[in-house]
Amino acid sequence: MSYERASMTEAQPISTTAVTKEIFREAMARLGAAVHIVTSDGPAGRVGFTASAVCSVTDSPPTLLVCLNRSASVYAAVRANGVLAVNTLAPEHRDLSQLFGGKTPIEERFAAARWKVGETGAPLLEDALVSFDCSIAQTFEVGSHTLLICEIAGVAGLARGDGLVYFNRAYHALGPATAG
Amino acid sequence: MSYERASMTEAQPISTTAVTKEIFREAMARLGAAVHIVTSDGPAGRVGFTASAVCSVTDSPPTLLVCLNRSASVYAAVRANGVLAVNTLAPEHRDLSQLFGGKTPIEERFAAARWKVGETGAPLLEDALVSFDCSIAQTFEVGSHTLLICEIAGVAGLARGDGLVYFNRAYHALGPATAG
Repeated sequence: MSYERASMTEAQPISTTAVTKEIFREAMARLGAAVHIVTSDGPAGRVGFTASAVCSVTDSPPTLLVCLNRSASVYAAVRANGVLAVNTLAPEHRDLSQLFGGKTPIEERFAAARWKVGETGAPLLEDALVSFDCSIAQTFEVGSHTLLICEIAGVAGLARGDGLVYFNRAYHALGPATAG
Repeated sequence: MSYERASMTEAQPISTTAVTKEIFREAMARLGAAVHIVTSDGPAGRVGFTASAVCSVTDSPPTLLVCLNRSASVYAAVRANGVLAVNTLAPEHRDLSQLFGGKTPIEERFAAARWKVGETGAPLLEDALVSFDCSIAQTFEVGSHTLLICEIAGVAGLARGDGLVYFNRAYHALGPATAG
């Protein structure tokens, strides 16, 4: 409608900030995101790391993606194993999130929690809010990272419980209450 | 270390749930995600819709992705325009989120808020927590959806403020307080 077009024409162009790496990280810190431990096991051995760059893709077929830096120490193992699990964390997993996001040796990380084995062989965190047991179906390289397109072979957990998100460089618990 | 390997061998395989579309949606509802209004403008006209399937990709070059159903009414316009903005919402944008996620005509949606024009021509929400002004650099089809790989030309906003996430089919405000 014309009045709306007019108001857009009047809208002043905004001077956006040039996107340095620092600005990119500062801006991305404003996006609240669920916290996950991504695990993998197979011929290349067991690995696990904390990740928030996980995204729903499609329910046809059930698919999610994990975005992983190709320079990450776990990258080769995840690709070689060809399977992974996304274990979505609850507020009580804050310490576990720190452990899997740091420099602690892999076996010590896994020793700090209880695990089951998914159909794909990937370790599933027993008390995760939900676990997605996945096979890597496709990969796409974008700059320094690779998008791992993961078909979901099975889902475990699905308990009702509080969530954990990372926002403004801090953990936040998501309770049952809503906010407007 | 061997004791850890042993404990994994002892771990019982878990019977995961077969992933119907309903299970997929139920499981994805457990992933807290930031709420955004994605906008686009150009030769194919102005469009805008609410989205949570947005993910950081890489800072080299600064890139995010938006996952969009190819059957969505806005899909053709976004692809033809070749640009989009991701406007990350704050708690006070709950009604705007509902408006851009429903059936309201496009012009009425935009009339409910104030906008500026990004360098790409995409509409930027004036009081967004942060706005990413992007050009679509690459696309990948995955099942029913397309991953729009978006290079970030500019960032606007970056105010300190509360966040808005969607979790368990409800809005949650993210204040400054952390939780463990």
